Amino acid sequence: MMQMRTHTCNALRLADVGKSVKIVGWMENVREVGSNLAFVVLRDFYGTTQVVAETEDMLAIIKGLNKESTISVEGVVRERASKNPKLATGEIEVVPNKIEILGRCRYNSLPFEINRSREADETARLKYRYLDLRNPAVKKNIILRCQVVAALRAAMTEHGFLEITTPILTASSPEGARDYLVPARKHPGKFYALPQAPQQFKQLLMTSGFDRYFQIAPCFRDEDARGDRSPGEFYQLDMEMAFATQDDVFAVLEDVLPPIFAKFGTYSVASSAPFRRIPYLESMETYGSDKPDLRIDLTCKNVTKLFENSDFDALKGQTVKMVDITDCTLTRKQIEKLLTDCQVQSGSKGYWFKVDENGELAGGIGKFVGPVREELSKVLDLKPNTLVVVAAGESATKSVGVMIKTFGAACEGHMDKERYEFCWIVDFPMYEIGDESGELEFCHNPFSMPSGGMETLLKAERGELDPLDIMANQYDLVCNGVELSSGAVRNHDPEIMIKAFEMVRLGEEDVKKKFPAMYNAFCYGAPPHAGIAPGVDRMVMLLAGESSIREIIPFPMNKNAQDVMMDAPSTVEQKQLDELHIALVGQLEE
Amino acid sequence: MMQMRTHTCNALRLADVGKSVKIVGWMENVREVGSNLAFVVLRDFYGTTQVVAETEDMLAIIKGLNKESTISVEGVVRERASKNPKLATGEIEVVPNKIEILGRCRYNSLPFEINRSREADETARLKYRYLDLRNPAVKKNIILRCQVVAALRAAMTEHGFLEITTPILTASSPEGARDYLVPARKHPGKFYALPQAPQQFKQLLMTSGFDRYFQIAPCFRDEDARGDRSPGEFYQLDMEMAFATQDDVFAVLEDVLPPIFAKFGTYSVASSAPFRRIPYLESMETYGSDKPDLRIDLTCKNVTKLFENSDFDALKGQTVKMVDITDCTLTRKQIEKLLTDCQVQSGSKGYWFKVDENGELAGGIGKFVGPVREELSKVLDLKPNTLVVVAAGESATKSVGVMIKTFGAACEGHMDKERYEFCWIVDFPMYEIGDESGELEFCHNPFSMPSGGMETLLKAERGELDPLDIMANQYDLVCNGVELSSGAVRNHDPEIMIKAFEMVRLGEEDVKKKFPAMYNAFCYGAPPHAGIAPGVDRMVMLLAGESSIREIIPFPMNKNAQDVMMDAPSTVEQKQLDELHIALVGQLEE
Repeated sequence: MMQMRTHTCNALRLADVGKSVKIVGWMENVREVGSNLAFVVLRDFYGTTQVVAETEDMLAIIKGLNKESTISVEGVVRERASKNPKLATGEIEVVPNKIEILGRCRYNSLPFEINRSREADETARLKYRYLDLRNPAVKKNIILRCQVVAALRAAMTEHGFLEITTPILTASSPEGARDYLVPARKHPGKFYALPQAPQQFKQLLMTSGFDRYFQIAPCFRDEDARGDRSPGEFYQLDMEMAFATQDDVFAVLEDVLPPIFAKFGTYSVASSAPFRRIPYLESMETYGSDKPDLRIDLTCKNVTKLFENSDFDALKGQTVKMVDITDCTLTRKQIEKLLTDCQVQSGSKGYWFKVDENGELAGGIGKFVGPVREELSKVLDLKPNTLVVVAAGESATKSVGVMIKTFGAACEGHMDKERYEFCWIVDFPMYEIGDESGELEFCHNPFSMPSGGMETLLKAERGELDPLDIMANQYDLVCNGVELSSGAVRNHDPEIMIKAFEMVRLGEEDVKKKFPAMYNAFCYGAPPHAGIAPGVDRMVMLLAGESSIREIIPFPMNKNAQDVMMDAPSTVEQKQLDELHIALVGQLEE
Repeated sequence: MMQMRTHTCNALRLADVGKSVKIVGWMENVREVGSNLAFVVLRDFYGTTQVVAETEDMLAIIKGLNKESTISVEGVVRERASKNPKLATGEIEVVPNKIEILGRCRYNSLPFEINRSREADETARLKYRYLDLRNPAVKKNIILRCQVVAALRAAMTEHGFLEITTPILTASSPEGARDYLVPARKHPGKFYALPQAPQQFKQLLMTSGFDRYFQIAPCFRDEDARGDRSPGEFYQLDMEMAFATQDDVFAVLEDVLPPIFAKFGTYSVASSAPFRRIPYLESMETYGSDKPDLRIDLTCKNVTKLFENSDFDALKGQTVKMVDITDCTLTRKQIEKLLTDCQVQSGSKGYWFKVDENGELAGGIGKFVGPVREELSKVLDLKPNTLVVVAAGESATKSVGVMIKTFGAACEGHMDKERYEFCWIVDFPMYEIGDESGELEFCHNPFSMPSGGMETLLKAERGELDPLDIMANQYDLVCNGVELSSGAVRNHDPEIMIKAFEMVRLGEEDVKKKFPAMYNAFCYGAPPHAGIAPGVDRMVMLLAGESSIREIIPFPMNKNAQDVMMDAPSTVEQKQLDELHIALVGQLEE
């Protein structure tokens, strides 16, 4: 079944020469050569084919049309005199005997040239997204997204997971980000909220007896845009397993993700199972980050002790961390430039010195390092041609994390770029001392299971364990330095939940108030369960190698949360507001 | 990978006897037999397994637990003394040596008995949906839904369709039903709307150069609940094809749907391609309905002419339609009862007569029919034992449609029930005379292509064709008397669109105002395109044989558009309203 055509615009080859065919598509380009010859590039979803008009009749039709009009062409396939080896259909052309106009483009000039739309102003691209998407380079990211999502669905289904759709009109949640609200016409004064994530529903599904749940889930957060987050909606590969441990969740994603990354990604290699597991504290210590990019072979060393009495004030008595970069050929100028870039990102100044080709300390703060060289060489590799970058002070960890990613990418031989390197960050602390309160608070998700369960909490309560040493059964999935998701073994036991809340001076009432349905459900016998929800948009960005999230969404909003093509948001009629029992207040937008 | 178990509760068989196993699940039932023997039914997602506690230790643990607690059981598989052939695991039992409590059910009594939840009050079921869903009879519909959706996705993907997700936060649409609105925090006084369907986006995708689009699309209409429509959200198998005709759309669904219906349905037989195509007017004339149930072999005959001068006032000069039902064994009482049922549905009284076993007209209005018997027998089969039901007056067509479905289902031999019979209703009129205006108006969708395109419209404009005779390239998909969807070849040509609007005294400005983005897009060269969007919920209802839509939705709202489990909709904080620049007005709900 070929719709209105016998072939698509990417189907005809030399073997088809002589055939009578019908092709349809957009008139991408017309090149008139004299009065009775014109070359037309016809484009459809699949590719392009050259049409050569050689008769007055055919030329007349073509001359009457603007580019980007849709036409159908009936004709005969002919071998091209001058072939184009770059094009799949470059060896043939179609000589038409009938051209039918299917949809006229009314305009002689377009807001931008289709095949150069990526260079156009973003507002124009978004307003004329239907033209932007005609650009094969734009379209391919959307196709990639569709293929990746279809592959994720297929893989999860193959692993025995059921895709269950959870409600989009639901209750406002007191946790997390700002909700999008929907006034309830039939319940004056009340509102639905769009889900920030199907977290509660998936846990309720576990309590309902479902065993392996997943969903390519739309999530909604009324937050301002970021490079990797579109305002409004985004998608998660949401999953949860009953009677499951951290290892069960890891095993599924270690099986599901690498083949999809290797198949659809810019790079064709991805970590194989098991992914490296790095405890949170170790990751901070070793990579200066809980989102390490394991394609980079650099690590950081804490040399604080060696500089307790340094002559260099910036290091003296400070936390000092260093990264040794062997076989480094960067010039002083390049080094200074990269350190400045790091400072912009991390907010604090970095230092450096080199071991020159003769093994001498040179450049940067080399002279201050001399006195401790021997001790330093026990933890750093100080062979000739090694660059050492240095971070000091309260934010040394963060700084050194930025340095590793920046210098790793810049110094040849230290980054094996063409691959997807996954790791799990595990063993996150459950509690922290709040910056403002100065008291014990939850670090992340209060509904993760503390490692060791009730016993650990009781130990802490009895003073046998520092609450700051309690770990949560929580984990992050990181790929190439990008956090794809947090997940956790959930706290499914109301008693442990209450105890965990008591540690931060709260109790059962607070648990109930936060998530009443889930708490009620857990009181009727819940299975231990665990899950995770890798971000689909972020995964597709990684695979496409795009840095703007708008490149991988079919119809994205702009940074100001507007759809300029559809004119959303927009004003509504008074009657609609009346029905919803609301009125507008304050200074309104024109 | 088996999560916390070695086997699920539907895995162990006679061949496993002697094995040491670990199973986990809910304690569905406990039967204590004396002081040192208890039978426990352990249930997980997959099935149930009997656990036999025979030691004091094991009994003590079980006695301390309420039903529906979750436990893990380690033990040895043993052949049962008395087997249960109805149960897949009925030949074995597990003798535990270790039972671990995973999640206590705090309550001794539940809101309803799990396995009889379908008999419980609906409010209780919805409030404790997580308990209701533990009932295998409830859960199986949700699993069916997931399987059907997964199968639809797989089949569409196989047919070369890309699943593209379109925005959920979008613009309010002036057409159709009432929108759900979402106040835009960053744009005071403006609102997003949730899409009633991705209609505009899918047509924009066609204009963007995509060739075959589909989406299991969430749709939102703020309408009151009906038996087959949940308030709030519902799902469509939304699809669209570029450069496509009606036949192309038909071919895809004729290929996709029957195998899925046959595999997952209550009945295992479904129409094969091509489905019958019945013009709208013919369907109304033959079946008294544009949603015929082709499993029924009854049709209706228009016998108006024969009763122009009838002695029976109810028929005289009226439209009269009759349905002959051969080999009918219904009693007078049964007939009268069924006619009363029909009257309740259609709002108008029906009549009947019989040809008795001797070939005599008898019963009902038999005596009024006598004079025209001979002429009647030319259109009706009046052999002995035939029942004829009669509808008259302005609503004769509607009445007779109800009669065919009612009597067809009630009269043995006239309905081949155990199958899915699809048909296409085609050739819908484009225009009608409005009830209120008395002038020409659009019948259905103003954006369908009129059959014959511009030429037909010009003919009508010149007075050479009655506008009421213009057909739209629009079609309905019907299965077993249920309308699954409307679809159409779209009007992709701005000039034809304007002309179609001019027929009803509107023009370009009105077209633009209704769908500005789509109209603009079509001015840049659009492909002819066609599509359809079968309702997922309705399909699953048909397959599950359920008559309430709430039985096939994981977490449905009640008829009053509330989620009583999550407490949605609910009040929000004043701060949230302030951020959204809205205030509550009028009489508010408590």
